[in-house]
Amino acid sequence: MAGTKLEFYNQWPEPKKLNTGSLLIFDERFKKHSWVLKFPHRYAVKSGEDLKDLRNLPRHLEAILKISENVDAKKITFIGMGGGSIGDFVGFVASVFKRGSHLIHVPSTWLSSIDSAHGGKTGLNIQRSKNQIGTFYPADKVLLIKPLLESQPLDRSTEALGEILKIALLQGSPLWKKISAVETIEQLQPWRFLKELISAKLKIVNQDPLEQKGIRQLLNLGHTLGHVFEAELKVPHGIAVLWGLGFTLQWSLQKKYLSSSELAKILLSPLGFLIPVGPELKIGLRRLKKAKVLLSQDKKRNSKKSLRFVFVKRIGQPKIDTVLIEDVLKEIKRQSL
Amino acid sequence: MAGTKLEFYNQWPEPKKLNTGSLLIFDERFKKHSWVLKFPHRYAVKSGEDLKDLRNLPRHLEAILKISENVDAKKITFIGMGGGSIGDFVGFVASVFKRGSHLIHVPSTWLSSIDSAHGGKTGLNIQRSKNQIGTFYPADKVLLIKPLLESQPLDRSTEALGEILKIALLQGSPLWKKISAVETIEQLQPWRFLKELISAKLKIVNQDPLEQKGIRQLLNLGHTLGHVFEAELKVPHGIAVLWGLGFTLQWSLQKKYLSSSELAKILLSPLGFLIPVGPELKIGLRRLKKAKVLLSQDKKRNSKKSLRFVFVKRIGQPKIDTVLIEDVLKEIKRQSL
Repeated sequence: MAGTKLEFYNQWPEPKKLNTGSLLIFDERFKKHSWVLKFPHRYAVKSGEDLKDLRNLPRHLEAILKISENVDAKKITFIGMGGGSIGDFVGFVASVFKRGSHLIHVPSTWLSSIDSAHGGKTGLNIQRSKNQIGTFYPADKVLLIKPLLESQPLDRSTEALGEILKIALLQGSPLWKKISAVETIEQLQPWRFLKELISAKLKIVNQDPLEQKGIRQLLNLGHTLGHVFEAELKVPHGIAVLWGLGFTLQWSLQKKYLSSSELAKILLSPLGFLIPVGPELKIGLRRLKKAKVLLSQDKKRNSKKSLRFVFVKRIGQPKIDTVLIEDVLKEIKRQSL
Repeated sequence: MAGTKLEFYNQWPEPKKLNTGSLLIFDERFKKHSWVLKFPHRYAVKSGEDLKDLRNLPRHLEAILKISENVDAKKITFIGMGGGSIGDFVGFVASVFKRGSHLIHVPSTWLSSIDSAHGGKTGLNIQRSKNQIGTFYPADKVLLIKPLLESQPLDRSTEALGEILKIALLQGSPLWKKISAVETIEQLQPWRFLKELISAKLKIVNQDPLEQKGIRQLLNLGHTLGHVFEAELKVPHGIAVLWGLGFTLQWSLQKKYLSSSELAKILLSPLGFLIPVGPELKIGLRRLKKAKVLLSQDKKRNSKKSLRFVFVKRIGQPKIDTVLIEDVLKEIKRQSL
């Protein structure tokens, strides 16, 4: 991970050498963008979970192999331009194409620029089970391009809030203070915090790059239920994580890990109020029908019956516990009543 | 690679701890074998290129995910029991399943016990293009089980000859002397040489585990044309490599890298006579119709027009050259006249 170079650009960078030995895989909504048109070898994809569906992989790789025959390089550089699903897909492709090719991420959403472009995780889904297939394959470079990131519509930047709050909760102050001092979503200009948000994530990743020591699991805060919400209710990832955080905070309170005053401090902060803990969470939880199956496929599970769950003790103080899947299901029921 | 443990067994080993957290993926021809039946979680596959066809991967992984739900382990151990195609497939599956699982190879053919089970290469095919998709994922262990290896029919041990001769040619004496002193194929009991053959391969692999320095490409001796023969004429891999060696030796002579006396020494050795250089090679070469397309997808190609080809100067002295694909095609033509 230490090997990944971060490059921040206030303007669109010249593709320069990028374009000779590279194959751009990009979100089709950029298909007429002048920067994209500079790349002679390119492949447009539609973002979303369909792209990550393992069943579509053979078709994509056949097309990519064909394009790659015209790329003049010993080792191709894949450039993935798009949001999280495109990064996960292109990262996976680069990691297995000819047993490993070069990789550059160009995240186009705040969510991916903060989270998924960093740390090397790639992932594909087996039917509804997310990220069952994947590799650890950090990019050679991540390009963070201000005009690209700022061109996304506001609702897409709202999606980043779940991960921003998660990272700030894990890291504590000063990041938490800065983030929670922002009074409206519109005021939260992620570009201002981008470097700090990325560092906070990489600080955790670098202690446990292959997720072998349990440290990296901290990043799973809000995600155990988040993934269930995402799969079942078809909400965007960032929003699902907000819901997952709501569930986590309430469970942490119930377990007496978290005090009610600390919970209030989180929920009453300018952005913390976006974490649902009231009736909307209840209704969401009641709609989960396949939680048991989805949780039993959770990659953080220890055995058939238990998984590792990240609780919150204080801002900046997470705590990992092994819990029975049965107990998660009971807690879902309790919170939904 | 240094991390892979080799275990030699004169008798079938007790599966012991193997069977609780493990998922055995095995050649269906062993489906009634008592050792196989000891594994509670298992998946039978049919060996061959169909197994390595990327288009079949989603179906296999869906089935494997389902079986894995009953495996009681934080991290599953995949055990691949079979020949080269099964090793390539199970190795790939282990490398991408939940972003990397444990892996044990149990090669059942001489060819895989000598070659593909070691060094960490995994591979799947995109249509006819071999091993376009893959990873470097050395097994935690390789179990070499004498009664399993000796149960294979003689024609399957003949298939190993290509790789045995290749390794001996690369390594030179004392291995070459020992191998070439054997007077009949029946006399060549690979179990006797197994340790030495594996060490000779690993000596090269360990200098260049990720194939970044050009050293590991030495193992490609005989394979550039070998893969073309295999894809076009549907001959087994080991046999295709013998044909590829024949082509290589003749081209090495033509380029004056190899003297005719050294060539005679190779071809007149007890096993070297199995390398085809006469009319049978001509006929084989004439039947290659798609060599151009297949060579342009060769993973050892440098650019669209050239690739790295391993020649032979003397026994134990290979030489890598960059050659134009055009020149390979010309040489195919020259040798086929």
